[in-house]
Amino acid sequence: MAMAGARKAKRKGKRAARKIARRGLMLVLSSPSGAGKTTLSRMLLKADKSVELSVSVTTRPRRPGEKHGRDYFFIQKPQFEKMVVNGELLEWAEVFGNLYGTPRAPVERALAAGRDVLFDIDWQGTQQLGQTARSDMASIFVLPPSIPELERRLRARALDAELVIRGRMAKAGDELSHWFEYDYVVLNDDIERAFADVRQILAAERLKRERLTGLSDFVRGLQAKL
Amino acid sequence: MAMAGARKAKRKGKRAARKIARRGLMLVLSSPSGAGKTTLSRMLLKADKSVELSVSVTTRPRRPGEKHGRDYFFIQKPQFEKMVVNGELLEWAEVFGNLYGTPRAPVERALAAGRDVLFDIDWQGTQQLGQTARSDMASIFVLPPSIPELERRLRARALDAELVIRGRMAKAGDELSHWFEYDYVVLNDDIERAFADVRQILAAERLKRERLTGLSDFVRGLQAKL
Repeated sequence: MAMAGARKAKRKGKRAARKIARRGLMLVLSSPSGAGKTTLSRMLLKADKSVELSVSVTTRPRRPGEKHGRDYFFIQKPQFEKMVVNGELLEWAEVFGNLYGTPRAPVERALAAGRDVLFDIDWQGTQQLGQTARSDMASIFVLPPSIPELERRLRARALDAELVIRGRMAKAGDELSHWFEYDYVVLNDDIERAFADVRQILAAERLKRERLTGLSDFVRGLQAKL
Repeated sequence: MAMAGARKAKRKGKRAARKIARRGLMLVLSSPSGAGKTTLSRMLLKADKSVELSVSVTTRPRRPGEKHGRDYFFIQKPQFEKMVVNGELLEWAEVFGNLYGTPRAPVERALAAGRDVLFDIDWQGTQQLGQTARSDMASIFVLPPSIPELERRLRARALDAELVIRGRMAKAGDELSHWFEYDYVVLNDDIERAFADVRQILAAERLKRERLTGLSDFVRGLQAKL
């Protein structure tokens, strides 16, 4: 018991020594529908408590079971338009007449506090984010291993009508063509391995010199002792 | 037994599916003497067979126990100077009247074959490498947790005379001042954790889109099936 306690204390001391302040990062996951980005997002949010999901604002009506502030912030169109004009959205888009956008303030708060923000968005959102927040962003494109496998996954979700599946397959080709705009590419031929890849990318991105905002002081402290 | 075999075959199939050709990368480790880069290099070479150490050319005489082609390529000064003039060295330096350099050809061969090359070099070598081979390089600066700990590690190597240790401590300040030139910074307060950090950085760098030279063909193959 005493030894276990000592070991724990030692480990705690080491962990404390590790505390160099860092700025959080914006982790973007994109992929064709069915390639696995939503599953990977869910796994990451569950496994890593320093990561939070960006909650979008939208003008579309709330559906049963959806919660304001968890699934979306449900707002009116004039309010949305004001946010656009005031530069309060990092990216936004219109889909079937409804407006969707990412509020800048909560993301900025998380990054400044050293927490990471996950974005499960398409290439259009990624392009906009990249224009406004490049140095905070790390983007991953998730590839399906094959087209039959992609189709199998879309069908496994069942429920969707044949026409919807056809439409998604067609859209996949469009999505696929944007792989070149991403920092990293992960092949999802095995969800556990793809997840390990995503976590390694996140771990490495956290060690980037430019994100370690406390380094300058830390090194100055070392040099003062020489 | 049959099941284990089937599982193994399945795993092998998955691994085969993962084969997207990639270009190797140049992984640079730098740190003040005693901060642990040489230990980390040794651990990495042992753990990861896709990584090889760059072997330098030098004009200094071979010491007992050193092997030509393993520790260094021992060459004469005129040959070295010819290599410099012909651009056959990625970086070089003169230390105490002896010349040391990194031959370009074996590095280029390794990268083209998808193998990674490790460089255990100082900030001057890193600066030169960065000028000639930036896009292939990922650089890590290893920090000691504290100055007393750095001194303790330098003394633990024993053998070295007090004056040598003093000299190394003084040089550490100079080395430390170059942390800002590196892509990543790893704090070596615990060798196993620092090693895990290095491996995560390497894993992530391998997933960078620009290194996955086979991606273009892979995506074209997917799109052809849509």
